[in-house]
Amino acid sequence: MAFDPIEFIETKKDGMKHRPKEIQEFIRLLVSGDLPEYQAAAWLMAVIFNGLAFSETLALTQAMATSGKVYKWDTDGPPVVDKHSTGGVGDTVTLVVAPLVAAMGMRMGKHSGRGLGHTGGTIDKLESIPGFRTSLTEKEFRKIVNRVGCGVAGQDKSMTPADGILYSLRDVTSTVDQEALIASSIMSKKLAGGAMHILLEVKVGSGAFMKDPESARSLSKLMIRLGMASGRNVRTVLSSMSSPLGRAVGNALEVREAIKVLKNDTPDDDPLKRIAIEIAARLASMCGFGKIHQTRSRARSCLAGGAALSRFRDMVSAQGGDEAVIDQPEKILPHAGKILEIPSTSNGFLKTCNALIIGELVRDLGGGRKSKNDVIDSSVGILIHSRPGMKVGSGDVLCEIHTNGRISNSEAVQRAESAFKVVSRKPEIPDLFI
Amino acid sequence: MAFDPIEFIETKKDGMKHRPKEIQEFIRLLVSGDLPEYQAAAWLMAVIFNGLAFSETLALTQAMATSGKVYKWDTDGPPVVDKHSTGGVGDTVTLVVAPLVAAMGMRMGKHSGRGLGHTGGTIDKLESIPGFRTSLTEKEFRKIVNRVGCGVAGQDKSMTPADGILYSLRDVTSTVDQEALIASSIMSKKLAGGAMHILLEVKVGSGAFMKDPESARSLSKLMIRLGMASGRNVRTVLSSMSSPLGRAVGNALEVREAIKVLKNDTPDDDPLKRIAIEIAARLASMCGFGKIHQTRSRARSCLAGGAALSRFRDMVSAQGGDEAVIDQPEKILPHAGKILEIPSTSNGFLKTCNALIIGELVRDLGGGRKSKNDVIDSSVGILIHSRPGMKVGSGDVLCEIHTNGRISNSEAVQRAESAFKVVSRKPEIPDLFI
Repeated sequence: MAFDPIEFIETKKDGMKHRPKEIQEFIRLLVSGDLPEYQAAAWLMAVIFNGLAFSETLALTQAMATSGKVYKWDTDGPPVVDKHSTGGVGDTVTLVVAPLVAAMGMRMGKHSGRGLGHTGGTIDKLESIPGFRTSLTEKEFRKIVNRVGCGVAGQDKSMTPADGILYSLRDVTSTVDQEALIASSIMSKKLAGGAMHILLEVKVGSGAFMKDPESARSLSKLMIRLGMASGRNVRTVLSSMSSPLGRAVGNALEVREAIKVLKNDTPDDDPLKRIAIEIAARLASMCGFGKIHQTRSRARSCLAGGAALSRFRDMVSAQGGDEAVIDQPEKILPHAGKILEIPSTSNGFLKTCNALIIGELVRDLGGGRKSKNDVIDSSVGILIHSRPGMKVGSGDVLCEIHTNGRISNSEAVQRAESAFKVVSRKPEIPDLFI
Repeated sequence: MAFDPIEFIETKKDGMKHRPKEIQEFIRLLVSGDLPEYQAAAWLMAVIFNGLAFSETLALTQAMATSGKVYKWDTDGPPVVDKHSTGGVGDTVTLVVAPLVAAMGMRMGKHSGRGLGHTGGTIDKLESIPGFRTSLTEKEFRKIVNRVGCGVAGQDKSMTPADGILYSLRDVTSTVDQEALIASSIMSKKLAGGAMHILLEVKVGSGAFMKDPESARSLSKLMIRLGMASGRNVRTVLSSMSSPLGRAVGNALEVREAIKVLKNDTPDDDPLKRIAIEIAARLASMCGFGKIHQTRSRARSCLAGGAALSRFRDMVSAQGGDEAVIDQPEKILPHAGKILEIPSTSNGFLKTCNALIIGELVRDLGGGRKSKNDVIDSSVGILIHSRPGMKVGSGDVLCEIHTNGRISNSEAVQRAESAFKVVSRKPEIPDLFI
């Protein structure tokens, strides 16, 4: 029987299940332009209310994954791995993980988005390095990843066009927040990227997309099932995201921080370092490189011995960036015109640093986009001096605001102050990993 | 605060109530083309699940009513009335009611659709009269209605454009079947039409849009409230629609039947005659012309004395139609090439004549449209000889199929036969009025 879009919508409206073939046809027509967006929008809203069964979500994921170009990597080289972090504030993890896994003997070729959100995407961060090119042909990209072990390119528009259409539509029809739609969007891109081993970091907390651990766990399980059912090795790790992960929030500031971690110039309890090591170690273990305690210590020595930094240098150079950024990041990366320090007004312990407030402030300073065509100011951002649980004295600097005056200094200061809460007794701080 | 379409959708998705101003703004942007259809579609689907409160439905109705041209009638002439029948099969009522209310001293200027459905709309029926024009300028239309007392014109595209957009969108996004959306669509058009007294006939049963009396009553109440809250005098009447109302189903056949009723050439228990008298009588009573038993007898005498027929003749002539249709309908109206008789195969009583089966058969014979641009064959249709409850003998003709061979004769016969059910004991037949 011919596919009827109205019946398709009605099936979901009535709480019935689609057959995989129907979902394939829906995606095919959507990409060919033969199914109008208003019908897709009505269907998305019906999904918000009636959900998708696993078989439907799997069909949707695979149909989106194969709606465009699918990357295949040669199987005789090092194992190809991928990671994904569900959006959070100040997520600099990829900048450290990619060279680290390369140093450990894996390949990671990441396609990253520019992202609409608090700060720019990984691509925006890397572009704060003078000369760094993220627009790579498929051939260039493959060559860099195969030679260096890692590479980061901008979204390849010929990949998962179906997800591109649905994602944009969800954004403007209030149909973002649905587990099956979130999972299928993420996993379709991972499947099309061609990695065999995929680690998904799901962030939970006030600064993350997932506000509570139960929904994060449920999303994780679903993504694992979708990946496994598609022949990939998928694991997840849940991490806490109430305060920003790294000390830096803002594009150039995050690159500086990543370089610091890669130079092994941060303490062992630095959250960015810890999470990068954990992700790299788990991926190595998934590839059969050893038990997790073995791969963890291997990851640590790759950081400590400079192997990861060397891969980062190779990647920057291969992608046209100025290598000097590694030795003199302060000199090479752009600077904001003014730095405002926010001191603590009391003695005690830092209880929270609200990631959402910090993220929105950085966006409004010019570090993120409100709409697709906004130009990012990569020099602005916030450098946090104190982590939750740490002792602070009155007058100690809680954070620095790097600004070019996009919003008034008084507004910036007031908003930054409101993100920090200092208490008199040492607070319980949840661990980074859940 | 500025109107944000995404927040608007989200409000309904979350089961919250819109403020009237938001709904006005939504409709304004929809008509100006500044709100894309995919956002309207997502909102419509959210309405399917979370409904609209009365205040929202009223705001929607009034915003749609005033989204285009609003007719105003001079108040010193006879009262302006309107009727609406929620779609049914073989609905010829308007053709009788319009001249009848004119004869009784009211004015009825109807804008009618062509309708996508089993048979054509009132416009399609009238166009089977040679020369009859339904494309009238506003000036022509007013002049005819004011002079003759009745007139029927095609949909004025400058009226209720918002309803036009939403209605088309609902049709293709499986969001038709929602009480508030149905009521606001009907009432917006009635409000824009400018009549002060409005009688809504809501049909219930297998051949109607409303399948059960409870939902029909609920829809009626809502439409009355919407009309009254907008300063109009609104009443409803529920009628049964399991079998076709008239004997004829098909455009030219229905015109012939209407003329027969207007000539008072049908028995008093003829359903079409009964319902036309009831509607005209109720409208007259709503206008203060007397108690219902008085206006009923006035309606009967206007039919019996030829006053209604005379108004019909004036209307046909004023709208360019061939008046000879009244004296010689068989000669003037188009004929189908072949008539197939369906005889009863048993003795007994007719229990049901399934209106839906008859309606779909007439459509497939060419008498209705499946898509907007289909051309109607006004000559085809079905003439029913027996009404539910009547005695039938084996061999008695149950109905005639008037066909031009659009579908095979054997298929037409088989489908027509399946519409009739003859039983041995006299069945209980629900009254026409509920």
